Amino acid sequence: MRIPLNRESETPLYQQIGSYLKKAILSGNLAAETRLPACRQLALDLGVNRTTVENAYALLEADGLVFSRMGSGTYVLAQNFVPQKDNAEMVLPLWQKNFQTEELISKSELADEMLQAAGHAHPISFAGGISDTRQFPVEEFRKILQAVMRRDQIAALEYGERSGYAPLREGITHILASQGLQTNPESILITAGSQQAIFLVAQVLLKPNDVILVENPTYSVALDLFRALGFQIIGIPMDSQGMLVDQLEKLLQQYHPRLIYTIPNFHNPTGACLSSPRRRQLIMLAERYNVPILEDDFVGDLRYDGHAQPSLKALDANGQVIYVGTFSKMLMPGLRVGFIVADGPVFNSLLNFKRVSDLATSTLIQRALDAYVTVGRYQTYLQRSSQVFRKRRDVMVAAIKRYLPSRVSFEIPSGGLFIWLKLPKPMSAEKLLPLACQAGVSFVPGNFFFVDGAEGQEWLRLNFAAQPVEEIEEGIRRLGKVLRL
Amino acid sequence: MRIPLNRESETPLYQQIGSYLKKAILSGNLAAETRLPACRQLALDLGVNRTTVENAYALLEADGLVFSRMGSGTYVLAQNFVPQKDNAEMVLPLWQKNFQTEELISKSELADEMLQAAGHAHPISFAGGISDTRQFPVEEFRKILQAVMRRDQIAALEYGERSGYAPLREGITHILASQGLQTNPESILITAGSQQAIFLVAQVLLKPNDVILVENPTYSVALDLFRALGFQIIGIPMDSQGMLVDQLEKLLQQYHPRLIYTIPNFHNPTGACLSSPRRRQLIMLAERYNVPILEDDFVGDLRYDGHAQPSLKALDANGQVIYVGTFSKMLMPGLRVGFIVADGPVFNSLLNFKRVSDLATSTLIQRALDAYVTVGRYQTYLQRSSQVFRKRRDVMVAAIKRYLPSRVSFEIPSGGLFIWLKLPKPMSAEKLLPLACQAGVSFVPGNFFFVDGAEGQEWLRLNFAAQPVEEIEEGIRRLGKVLRL
Repeated sequence: MRIPLNRESETPLYQQIGSYLKKAILSGNLAAETRLPACRQLALDLGVNRTTVENAYALLEADGLVFSRMGSGTYVLAQNFVPQKDNAEMVLPLWQKNFQTEELISKSELADEMLQAAGHAHPISFAGGISDTRQFPVEEFRKILQAVMRRDQIAALEYGERSGYAPLREGITHILASQGLQTNPESILITAGSQQAIFLVAQVLLKPNDVILVENPTYSVALDLFRALGFQIIGIPMDSQGMLVDQLEKLLQQYHPRLIYTIPNFHNPTGACLSSPRRRQLIMLAERYNVPILEDDFVGDLRYDGHAQPSLKALDANGQVIYVGTFSKMLMPGLRVGFIVADGPVFNSLLNFKRVSDLATSTLIQRALDAYVTVGRYQTYLQRSSQVFRKRRDVMVAAIKRYLPSRVSFEIPSGGLFIWLKLPKPMSAEKLLPLACQAGVSFVPGNFFFVDGAEGQEWLRLNFAAQPVEEIEEGIRRLGKVLRL
Repeated sequence: MRIPLNRESETPLYQQIGSYLKKAILSGNLAAETRLPACRQLALDLGVNRTTVENAYALLEADGLVFSRMGSGTYVLAQNFVPQKDNAEMVLPLWQKNFQTEELISKSELADEMLQAAGHAHPISFAGGISDTRQFPVEEFRKILQAVMRRDQIAALEYGERSGYAPLREGITHILASQGLQTNPESILITAGSQQAIFLVAQVLLKPNDVILVENPTYSVALDLFRALGFQIIGIPMDSQGMLVDQLEKLLQQYHPRLIYTIPNFHNPTGACLSSPRRRQLIMLAERYNVPILEDDFVGDLRYDGHAQPSLKALDANGQVIYVGTFSKMLMPGLRVGFIVADGPVFNSLLNFKRVSDLATSTLIQRALDAYVTVGRYQTYLQRSSQVFRKRRDVMVAAIKRYLPSRVSFEIPSGGLFIWLKLPKPMSAEKLLPLACQAGVSFVPGNFFFVDGAEGQEWLRLNFAAQPVEEIEEGIRRLGKVLRL
């Protein structure tokens, strides 16, 4: 035990030791039944006489904070005090004044906290950003994790290869090939979820004040990231076919961006899918203006109808596109495994930045995912999920038509997780949210997804994939009641 | 399957589909026995006639790339071709020219690669940065992981709390209290290893071109990080009592640094422990000059003799010190769990930056660590490790005295993992390394740890904790032979 002692102080050392331990016990940091170090040992540790420690322990015993068990040692007694945070006493240094930041809560968490706080007996959330966690194959994954630990032993707990576990990178190339994207394990970098993948690309390609082009609206946590990194964010307008690529060229000329961030498939939040001609035009323009593209394909394979669009990366012959994929949205988000596909010298820059930012991603989880995610299992999972989520989408669409005023408008998404709904003017989704939560239903107001938060007041995002059909029906019914108030 | 098709091309669609699949099969991305999508399904996916797909498959069958199983589908045939990377054909975009970076290999990996390449029958590495992985309780951890998955089910695979799993944060406060540092769970942020912890603090407190003060020498991956972030790095000289704090004030006046990064306990690479008066003086100066301190306590509790020093954080009443700890070095590095202890508004800034950089750390691993790392088990582990590593240190010290020329010099470290050895002039550790590797032993040359890589030629770092005693004896004997050449 490393107790801070001040040998120049007028307070005797036994009192310093006693006060330190008293504070630790009363704060709950030293829990009941914790055994204090033997007097001899603590004296040795601190470089004091054994009597000094004995006197300190005697003080504590007199205060009813510890008791001695004959021949066994000194133990902390249970206290009735509530542990208290004593940060209030702190006199913070000046540099801390630069950090008066609030905790940045994610938009879906915010809506769900409001929903919980409203206290409805049976709340229904359409605010989440992921699919239905009840679909996750927990038991199967548990068995695989076991098998991996038995098989790999200590190797599963050591540092792994820096670009990621090689068999997993190879497995990813097979899955990507089955989805129409050809690459090789040397072009794949495993990351801590797709968020870290986006983060690494942004960090490596841009400096503060550089310009990044994004679809407007776009994924809110990507916006938060780009803001945190000090980028100048310029939005590209969208329609039901995705990014309005014909407006891109003038933005490229005007702003000289360092990166185009896009979600071409089942876009978050709009659900739009970039049309095939626009895909080719986007790549052509990026090549002409020498701007890399970051393709975020978070649920690109979760398609319910319509034709499959090739990923931008599959259309890119020359290392213009950096592709980001993930297992998190489709399998288990808490595992935090995503990946980057990048060609050319930028790959090593990404790898190097990954190394200085967290050395590597958990090797145990990578090994388990490798054992779990075979092409066959992935396809089966996709098929099953697509069936379930298609049904849910259809139920939500029908419920919106039945329960919501006819003046709301939306496109039916052909895949993904979200319906992007426009309210009749002058309604505000942000103002609607507290009322909806009181009625027992939540969503994410649209303004969170816009470069300029003042935009998008009349939009809201509904996640249709996270709830079973009965809940969807009931949730939209509630929303309808609130909208008619 | 999302095959990229060009409908304006003169190449018929069935040939485009056929070529795409042929390439995928020959590259090995579509492995033998993979079942191709049913013709009807692929036609639907791609928005083409069924005949088009049938013609494409017929092409592949004629080429001997696939075969049909009656009533079951079309399967990829095993190929004899070696998968090839075709990046050579790429015409990289201009922006890629900014990234001619080599892969940044860590210094200990570099030495160990050289050792492996030298091809000695029985190589012995003293280059590693961690303790002995053979000490890790793999089987115990496997059982706990199982128990946690059975107990928590789906919750173990979902996103967790953003500052980290609450019971683990509470458990950490108990362990820290038992080590003399009092804090509370609200001041703890779980990170992906201590590397991410250092990264977050550096990102949040400094901008490119800001000045950071570090001990010179210091942890090489921290140097790599600070270089990658574009900081101006100023070194503070050290002696056997750690940082020369009496030289600090003039550096503070001259450079106005935004952060002091220090490893006060069993420093990497020197093994030095900052003396108690210097600890107080360091904090006093940091307060006076309004500069935060980042305390990296990577093996602070791994003490073999001497008195315990309080951590800087324990001496800091006012949120001046940000403390970084880890389980990685002492338990299982591949698990990637570390933590920050920070008070004041900077805590939320760190939390927000953690969120945008990777959302959260794997909740499953955090839950398993929480179940595994009790105060009692931690203390037992520490005691056992300390005994083992003390013995190894003593064996290395004796071997150095026996086998190395008497003109080498070093201090005996009172804890940690490293002996920092000075060669007689004009020897160069970097030039010695290849010869040592040929003789079957490796170490890390000292220059990697210095702000100016040209310094430290005469130093080398030996890890005494990673090898059993017989290997230590033999490894130092080999080193002695090389030194006498």
